Amino acid sequence: MTKLATFSDARGTRIGCVQEDGRMLDLSAVPGAPGGGDMLSLIAAGPAALAAVTALAAAPPPAALLPAGSWTLLAPIPRPRRNVFCVGRNYMDHVAEGDRTRGITNSELPKFPQFFTKAPDCVIGPEDWIPTHAGITQWLDYEVELAAIIGTEGTNIPKERALDHVFGWTIGNDVTGRDLQRRYGQWFKGKSLDRSCPLGPWIVPAAELDALNTGIRLWVNGEKRQDSNTAKMIFDVKEIIHQLSIGFTLKPGDVIITGTPEGVGYAMQPPKTLQPGDVVECEIDGIGRLRNAVKAE
Amino acid sequence: MTKLATFSDARGTRIGCVQEDGRMLDLSAVPGAPGGGDMLSLIAAGPAALAAVTALAAAPPPAALLPAGSWTLLAPIPRPRRNVFCVGRNYMDHVAEGDRTRGITNSELPKFPQFFTKAPDCVIGPEDWIPTHAGITQWLDYEVELAAIIGTEGTNIPKERALDHVFGWTIGNDVTGRDLQRRYGQWFKGKSLDRSCPLGPWIVPAAELDALNTGIRLWVNGEKRQDSNTAKMIFDVKEIIHQLSIGFTLKPGDVIITGTPEGVGYAMQPPKTLQPGDVVECEIDGIGRLRNAVKAE
Repeated sequence: MTKLATFSDARGTRIGCVQEDGRMLDLSAVPGAPGGGDMLSLIAAGPAALAAVTALAAAPPPAALLPAGSWTLLAPIPRPRRNVFCVGRNYMDHVAEGDRTRGITNSELPKFPQFFTKAPDCVIGPEDWIPTHAGITQWLDYEVELAAIIGTEGTNIPKERALDHVFGWTIGNDVTGRDLQRRYGQWFKGKSLDRSCPLGPWIVPAAELDALNTGIRLWVNGEKRQDSNTAKMIFDVKEIIHQLSIGFTLKPGDVIITGTPEGVGYAMQPPKTLQPGDVVECEIDGIGRLRNAVKAE
Repeated sequence: MTKLATFSDARGTRIGCVQEDGRMLDLSAVPGAPGGGDMLSLIAAGPAALAAVTALAAAPPPAALLPAGSWTLLAPIPRPRRNVFCVGRNYMDHVAEGDRTRGITNSELPKFPQFFTKAPDCVIGPEDWIPTHAGITQWLDYEVELAAIIGTEGTNIPKERALDHVFGWTIGNDVTGRDLQRRYGQWFKGKSLDRSCPLGPWIVPAAELDALNTGIRLWVNGEKRQDSNTAKMIFDVKEIIHQLSIGFTLKPGDVIITGTPEGVGYAMQPPKTLQPGDVVECEIDGIGRLRNAVKAE
């Protein structure tokens, strides 16, 4: 599995491939390696560049390997060029748990994907912490989600061609102020608290994972809270890309997070909110694990 | 009144000031003029840079004036760095007309601003046309809105300090696919059709306009459809900036459109949609007029 990462050390921020032994293939140390130094440039460089990087990762030049622990992982795209696209209420059991909480029936399953956004500056990386926003939200919650990274521009993308537009997959945590999400009617406000979009730990190339049928889980302090499979989405990734691109041009580097399964804190009995000191771990089989601590500011 | 514009001609895209006689003060032709060549750089350069530009516009060096008709106006910020922030249902009479249409009472006035976004690539300029998106929406509608351009970064901005964070004012047209807005539950999808965010024609510095009490109007083919005053907002610009910045950092160059008054097409009897050949003119007193034609693709 190729793990395309953005990392930093004393020499700056650049991209590489995390190796199975924990070392980092520093692409900037490989003469002639493609990518241009950041993930958005690698995405823009197209399939041949990705193939070259994948080949390098499989047989890395020893001189370009950095020892484990000598670098810090950032979000694979530290700052997307526009808001992260999000889908709400996209797993049936999550819709049902929300309906139980609100006392309405799940006959109200969405007939179309419910799209909203998170500001791109909310993205944080796998070694960053999530602030509690004490005094601003009383109800901070988590949501593990499969994230699709768009590789190829497209408008009105047919469902059957949608995966051709995906560069790769990563994990998103759609951290939410539940009280704000409700208070402001539209969801943007409760979904765009500063540092509320952990993303990572790396991107797996689209061809290396059947992301439409893979396990997705989340733990808080080691307690498993969410445990599902992306096959249970109401609108799968192909349908999401198709629908989002209707009359709207998707661009290389766009990030789409695709909804969360059942098990969020607000639907627990009794409801649970994220607290200072909590550790949230998001996992998707075939990608890895995204771990973030929660801290008071 | 200073009119801060982004324009292009055969020599490229840059910023200037539209003069009362219709000529353009080309800031790139003034040695030592501030701004760095684009509006986001001018905003980032701070109040002293804006003051210097304002002084230049009041007494322009003749050699830096371009004749009217020799340049094309673009949106003052042709491509914001992240999604345009929007407020829904923010004039009481517009809420009421929407409620009439949907058959519910206006006791449901929003108690907090309803924030959503439009993708930054949807921005078009004062000389661009709006596509009908035939086959994608059956119900294309207009919404004239006051746009605030953020000048100074801030989080948890108190209402009484909110205007200190405004760089200037312009006009936005929140072009909407009404059927899509409803179909997708959350509003992003119906609000982010390609080319659905006309912005301009220029930015007026914050200090030169009492934007909290100014006339706002819209015509379609010369027929006045909207005619109100920004003083009729449910949440005024100060409250909008305060609320949006709660737990969320506003950045220089952010664009916030602040809701539309009554008179949108979908609430007319009978409802009217934008058609190919229509000309939509948005006006705010103290700024100017933003005019866009509607065309079939």
